[in-house]
Amino acid sequence: MTQRAHANTHPNDRPAEPSILRVPAPPPGAVEVLESLRSTGPLVACITNAVVTNFTANVLLAVGAAPAMVDVTGEAGPFAAGACALLINLGTPQPEQRSAAVEAATAARAAGVPWVLDPVAVGTLVHRTALAHRLLDEAPTVIRGNASEIIALAGSGAGGRGVDSADDVEAALDAARSLSERTGAVIAVSGPMDAIVDGARVTRVGGGSALLTRVTGGGCALGALVAGFVAAGRASGADAGAATVACHAAYSAAAEIAAETAAGPGSFRIALLDALYALDADDLARIPVI
Amino acid sequence: MTQRAHANTHPNDRPAEPSILRVPAPPPGAVEVLESLRSTGPLVACITNAVVTNFTANVLLAVGAAPAMVDVTGEAGPFAAGACALLINLGTPQPEQRSAAVEAATAARAAGVPWVLDPVAVGTLVHRTALAHRLLDEAPTVIRGNASEIIALAGSGAGGRGVDSADDVEAALDAARSLSERTGAVIAVSGPMDAIVDGARVTRVGGGSALLTRVTGGGCALGALVAGFVAAGRASGADAGAATVACHAAYSAAAEIAAETAAGPGSFRIALLDALYALDADDLARIPVI
Amino acid sequence: MTQRAHANTHPNDRPAEPSILRVPAPPPGAVEVLESLRSTGPLVACITNAVVTNFTANVLLAVGAAPAMVDVTGEAGPFAAGACALLINLGTPQPEQRSAAVEAATAARAAGVPWVLDPVAVGTLVHRTALAHRLLDEAPTVIRGNASEIIALAGSGAGGRGVDSADDVEAALDAARSLSERTGAVIAVSGPMDAIVDGARVTRVGGGSALLTRVTGGGCALGALVAGFVAAGRASGADAGAATVACHAAYSAAAEIAAETAAGPGSFRIALLDALYALDADDLARIPVI
Repeated sequence: MTQRAHANTHPNDRPAEPSILRVPAPPPGAVEVLESLRSTGPLVACITNAVVTNFTANVLLAVGAAPAMVDVTGEAGPFAAGACALLINLGTPQPEQRSAAVEAATAARAAGVPWVLDPVAVGTLVHRTALAHRLLDEAPTVIRGNASEIIALAGSGAGGRGVDSADDVEAALDAARSLSERTGAVIAVSGPMDAIVDGARVTRVGGGSALLTRVTGGGCALGALVAGFVAAGRASGADAGAATVACHAAYSAAAEIAAETAAGPGSFRIALLDALYALDADDLARIPVI
Repeated sequence: MTQRAHANTHPNDRPAEPSILRVPAPPPGAVEVLESLRSTGPLVACITNAVVTNFTANVLLAVGAAPAMVDVTGEAGPFAAGACALLINLGTPQPEQRSAAVEAATAARAAGVPWVLDPVAVGTLVHRTALAHRLLDEAPTVIRGNASEIIALAGSGAGGRGVDSADDVEAALDAARSLSERTGAVIAVSGPMDAIVDGARVTRVGGGSALLTRVTGGGCALGALVAGFVAAGRASGADAGAATVACHAAYSAAAEIAAETAAGPGSFRIALLDALYALDADDLARIPVI
Repeated sequence: MTQRAHANTHPNDRPAEPSILRVPAPPPGAVEVLESLRSTGPLVACITNAVVTNFTANVLLAVGAAPAMVDVTGEAGPFAAGACALLINLGTPQPEQRSAAVEAATAARAAGVPWVLDPVAVGTLVHRTALAHRLLDEAPTVIRGNASEIIALAGSGAGGRGVDSADDVEAALDAARSLSERTGAVIAVSGPMDAIVDGARVTRVGGGSALLTRVTGGGCALGALVAGFVAAGRASGADAGAATVACHAAYSAAAEIAAETAAGPGSFRIALLDALYALDADDLARIPVI
């Protein structure tokens, strides 16, 4: 649920509403992952873009994780190797950060630390696109993006407009399956209805709020949160796919709760942090997962 | 209205209150520009300083534009050429960003993309001052700054104290006219009463709130918003001068609305985003424009 | 009061509650420092990490100071020499920023400008650790960190986990005293009960809120605020030690006030800015200082 609001105006591109099964219980294992995250406070190393660093760190802290951004060469590798999970987001890939990202991903893979790739605006922009493909060699655990980014990374499209998607989630499913099978990664495609693709298995997560498209970092922070949930899932017995589904459901639930009281995008963003902090099993159960 | 609050303590330096004509209607074309911005969601490429990137992006999103920061060489030029408008803010000019700024401005000019220069703290600091003068060669559409910055850029002063102005808006009018005539740019001078100078024409925009001086990025985000309004004005038939006036009026209106409920600068900043999101024609009409 | 919340679960590591003397008056000179800060609006040059720049600037603006981040070589030195105080925070030490930090600290020392060192995550990470030791040669006025950072900088420990402390404040007192005597700096150790060490003198500041550990930059912004208070103290007759105690008390008071109305970390952070803006002598008096 991180595409722009007008994506909601094309209902025919999404599964019809009646086909959504409202599950009266949280996704399997989701409550345990959330509890694990809060009790263990996993250290999440973040290499992310300049626009969203602050919001990303606050999202992780609100839910109980311990974020730290270490993005200089010489430090990024050792730090990632000792963290519980790593996020690499390509939104503003300065030269030093590009080198640090490769160092960190390589170290994470060698140390068995799970890591998430968020290939922001990949497609035609030269540095991030080359870097994204280089990073695929380091076996990301999860790749999270909007439909256009996933299509572009899979090799079948040119990308979206800046950080916005020009494609719908359902149109990206073939690319996501192909990318998942080729890399072994879980692919999380964000949109009005998210799709988490793990090999041949596709899980859709609904809910959320269009206001997520009116604050910057809505998708980027979700990528970092996935890293935290995957780390926590290791302790609670959830695999990366299940932890990613749990994370998307948690984020959608918090967004719905925040939207109920928000007067606009400013207050929405604040309420989202408060909702993540207070999230419980009942909240998780309100999100449709099919 | 982005100078420090204590600037309000020198009433004799500003036009006396009775000379302000309260216009009971929005500035000409302002409502159409705002509607155009919301319906078209123009992509605004931003190269801005590290302190305000997040707030800047949120201001643009709140009002309906689509911001994206691309500030590495090799990407900045192609991205700016494909955007609807470009902002270049010199607040924290790292070496890579300085090169990217020249690349982006050159590409924007060649592609006919309007662009806004915000010469933060220009004057005695060596890199940003040299860069600002270099960028004047690329024909900015609008130059936005406080009085000291405009005076310094026009060549007739030494600049302010950090990001604060040491001069009053009215004292910068000669410099602004000279700069406008020399460069062809619209010059927007921010202060308790803003002045927008387009060649020989001067338009003043009042309203706003002194709380804008107690949050960081109040002026920087306005510069980005001007870029969005100028892009939208192209679609609605407003020239850069009219779009800049409309933008300053919109921002002042949102600030006034936010100040009515804010308990301090923290809640003011949140309310400002909510107010920009909800802004309508009646709100625009409350701001004095002369 | 910037350690993670779970640090509160070890009450035996802190002085027992009955030993805390509730002082019914603000710390000596604290009200005067705060008034001086508001009336003079000291210019605080900040070289800080990418995650917290925005929040840091907003904290300084809320309390009445004038922040400016100038962190490129060639500008950082001249700017620091003309500022009222300087903060150097090592959280994300990009190569250009590392060089700028040395330039600024050297210039500040030469010009007699007080400056604060915040050695974030110093210990095993190579660049920030080397830089922190290099910067000790430039005689920081105050060094602010958590217990693990102070222990590591004093040469007697390996540092914490990312930005979190692995040690308690009281366990860092010997290291803080040693560091203070060796460098001449005031050492401020943050935790559930802060300790400010000035040579052999130790002052403890309580109060605050565990929510400070759930927002990013809680400690980093405090370091910048210390720089502002030390600058203001010069005008009001408070030495660096007294100004640092006043600053910690002010920050703890604002955090307590913010926590009273906050629904979670999102609203807490906003309320903290509002509380800093409105802080008065009665608020300062509620914080235990011993």
